[in-house]
Amino acid sequence: MVVIGSGFGGLFAVKRLRRAPVEVTVIDRATHHLFQPLLYQVATGILSDGEIAPAIRDVLHRQRNARVVLGDVDGIDLEARTVTSHLRGSRLVTPYDSLIVAAGAVVSYFGHDDYRRHAPGLKTIGDARELRNRILGAFEMAEIEPDPDTRAAWLTFVVVGGGPTGIEMAGQIAELAHRTLRSNFRNIDPGGARILLVDGAPRILMSFREELAAKAAGRLRALGVEVQVGAKVTGLDAGAITVEGPGSEIRQVRAMTKVWAAGVTGAPLGRLLAAASGTPLEPGGRVRVLPDCSLPGYPEVFVVGDLMALHGLPGVAEVAMQSGRHAAGEIARRRRGHAEPRRFHYHDLGNLASISRYYAVAEFGSVGFAGLAGWLLWLVVHLTFLTGFKNRLSALFHWIISFCGRSRAERTITIGE
Amino acid sequence: MVVIGSGFGGLFAVKRLRRAPVEVTVIDRATHHLFQPLLYQVATGILSDGEIAPAIRDVLHRQRNARVVLGDVDGIDLEARTVTSHLRGSRLVTPYDSLIVAAGAVVSYFGHDDYRRHAPGLKTIGDARELRNRILGAFEMAEIEPDPDTRAAWLTFVVVGGGPTGIEMAGQIAELAHRTLRSNFRNIDPGGARILLVDGAPRILMSFREELAAKAAGRLRALGVEVQVGAKVTGLDAGAITVEGPGSEIRQVRAMTKVWAAGVTGAPLGRLLAAASGTPLEPGGRVRVLPDCSLPGYPEVFVVGDLMALHGLPGVAEVAMQSGRHAAGEIARRRRGHAEPRRFHYHDLGNLASISRYYAVAEFGSVGFAGLAGWLLWLVVHLTFLTGFKNRLSALFHWIISFCGRSRAERTITIGE
Repeated sequence: MVVIGSGFGGLFAVKRLRRAPVEVTVIDRATHHLFQPLLYQVATGILSDGEIAPAIRDVLHRQRNARVVLGDVDGIDLEARTVTSHLRGSRLVTPYDSLIVAAGAVVSYFGHDDYRRHAPGLKTIGDARELRNRILGAFEMAEIEPDPDTRAAWLTFVVVGGGPTGIEMAGQIAELAHRTLRSNFRNIDPGGARILLVDGAPRILMSFREELAAKAAGRLRALGVEVQVGAKVTGLDAGAITVEGPGSEIRQVRAMTKVWAAGVTGAPLGRLLAAASGTPLEPGGRVRVLPDCSLPGYPEVFVVGDLMALHGLPGVAEVAMQSGRHAAGEIARRRRGHAEPRRFHYHDLGNLASISRYYAVAEFGSVGFAGLAGWLLWLVVHLTFLTGFKNRLSALFHWIISFCGRSRAERTITIGE
Repeated sequence: MVVIGSGFGGLFAVKRLRRAPVEVTVIDRATHHLFQPLLYQVATGILSDGEIAPAIRDVLHRQRNARVVLGDVDGIDLEARTVTSHLRGSRLVTPYDSLIVAAGAVVSYFGHDDYRRHAPGLKTIGDARELRNRILGAFEMAEIEPDPDTRAAWLTFVVVGGGPTGIEMAGQIAELAHRTLRSNFRNIDPGGARILLVDGAPRILMSFREELAAKAAGRLRALGVEVQVGAKVTGLDAGAITVEGPGSEIRQVRAMTKVWAAGVTGAPLGRLLAAASGTPLEPGGRVRVLPDCSLPGYPEVFVVGDLMALHGLPGVAEVAMQSGRHAAGEIARRRRGHAEPRRFHYHDLGNLASISRYYAVAEFGSVGFAGLAGWLLWLVVHLTFLTGFKNRLSALFHWIISFCGRSRAERTITIGE
């Protein structure tokens, strides 16, 4: 059988099949399992690449029934039951009896693909490095810029999108400016940096209850972040961003550094899969599946995680893990002769978003936390889910450096080289 | 005053002036102080960028008389006493009363610049990432390659140059293949990788005494590295390398991955400085200086480190540190009214090169060590010179993981993304 993708969905599917009498081939375009919820910490110099992106073949090296293949999947033949991938011009056709598609999501600019080069998103290690170069590089540029207006533009950072990734980025840029970079410069005061968080929704953190979102917004404002909700981006280029709203207000802000955390859409593979199976593609580029996560008409094909449209489940790590595990379980059960499909039941384990050191919002069912209690929960949950004991130890060490101390271990950029 | 370069020469010069009544401007094209002797460990996944490349302005943030400017120096006007640098199109002219040029060295292909794209050198963080991508990527390519000859070419690694960097790279590629990647692949056996070390000299490690070099060569052979001395590279392209010698033997080896550790030359700034001062450029692109490290005819200009030609001193970190400190000391003395120049005396603290875990060669004066004793010395010396307590702790942790354990913390590559 074949698993496309080694994110949370793919990895949890493969691990579920550890003792099953199947041979699993994992195909991914990256060589690592990426712990996406901490990508913003790589972008802001807290963690190193390796801590959140261990080599997938090392994670699976003891699982003898699993093999890993590097490649970009560009074709699925549902009738011939083959997956086609390519890597640097060489093509590979891999046959399957069962298939789990866990290809995830990509950054979406909602039709404005011209925004991409000026406002990178945050989905890959390459994105995180690019943003780290831009954010830390902006302070470098400001330090040598003689014109006050341009200097101010270098010291203005706009994060588009008020979901967890957006608020985490905004909070960390604020901590960088106010704490980490303090007394690092002589011409500029990094603490004077302006950080804007813009979202079109009526409030930030729409997936959280209103009271927690309000506390998060308050904390962001206390950090010096200008939170602007009900505001839509209508223009974006190398040096500025235009924001409309709330109401009829239109503002153009000069800002050299923009981060796009406004939304994602299902990976391009979803369109291909929908077309091949005759299923219409859902809004958000997701593939509608049956209650057991299988593709309508193709019971041997499962779609899980961010690419799956089922009961309006959100594109979060927990859904990917559980649906990946469910699909793998279905495949294992069928091998044992159980033919009837089982519905996927999602167990909502709650929501977490960290705003700054010692401050996070968390909700579990009807219980909500904001502040230090939320942050400690955040810490425990992320340490638990980080892959590998050594990565946990190493991340903990870097968190102590960054949160108790003032510095960040991974400030290396390659802007000048 | 101005210091060009934030490597060992530049950093030690600036630090020497900590309490001197001068304002120091450091100009560098990178934002970090690079600990070059451990760059091969970033290239082979042991250490992260941040551990060996802390932000220079963070290293100096407490030194209030020092400011750091990011920029690529492309002009020195010795008469007007100004340094011109540029960064992304913006130009900066910095006047100086005293100047220390610590621009270091760059990889040299001895006239064969066409080799560069096929055989990267190892001088910057960017180089280390590129080599990590290529080395770990080669195993990925081999895993999916159906043709046995091409697969063998992906599993063949050639390191050109038998100095410390060359043997360290060859040794680490061998440890990666035999230890780290063991049981990570299903189609190939990484342990079957072929690693060649080629050098034109009659033996490797020419800067060490013969007995230690012989032991190092023996250890490399025990690790499975084919050591070929007295052999010159006469051809090199994307898929192969041609080696002539010893004697009239000519071999062409199919190898996808080549590392160039064969030599360096003074930074391009040296040529500019030589021309401006009327001093001929020495072989190796170095600038001949007076015994006090100053430029002939320009007592206010010092050239230190790898760019300096003086008494045939080698291009090693120790020379850079000591000459940087000496030049800074001269400047401080003159401020205090001492006009007569003092000669630079180099204290040779010895030579170190690590071949594999638990095995290094070390020589201090007439005493030589090979094996575990040498490796412990290597460990202590490198921990001592690494900048920052936190980096030391973090590097030590990663060494424990890599040397006692089997894994490497920083295997993340971006080949597929």
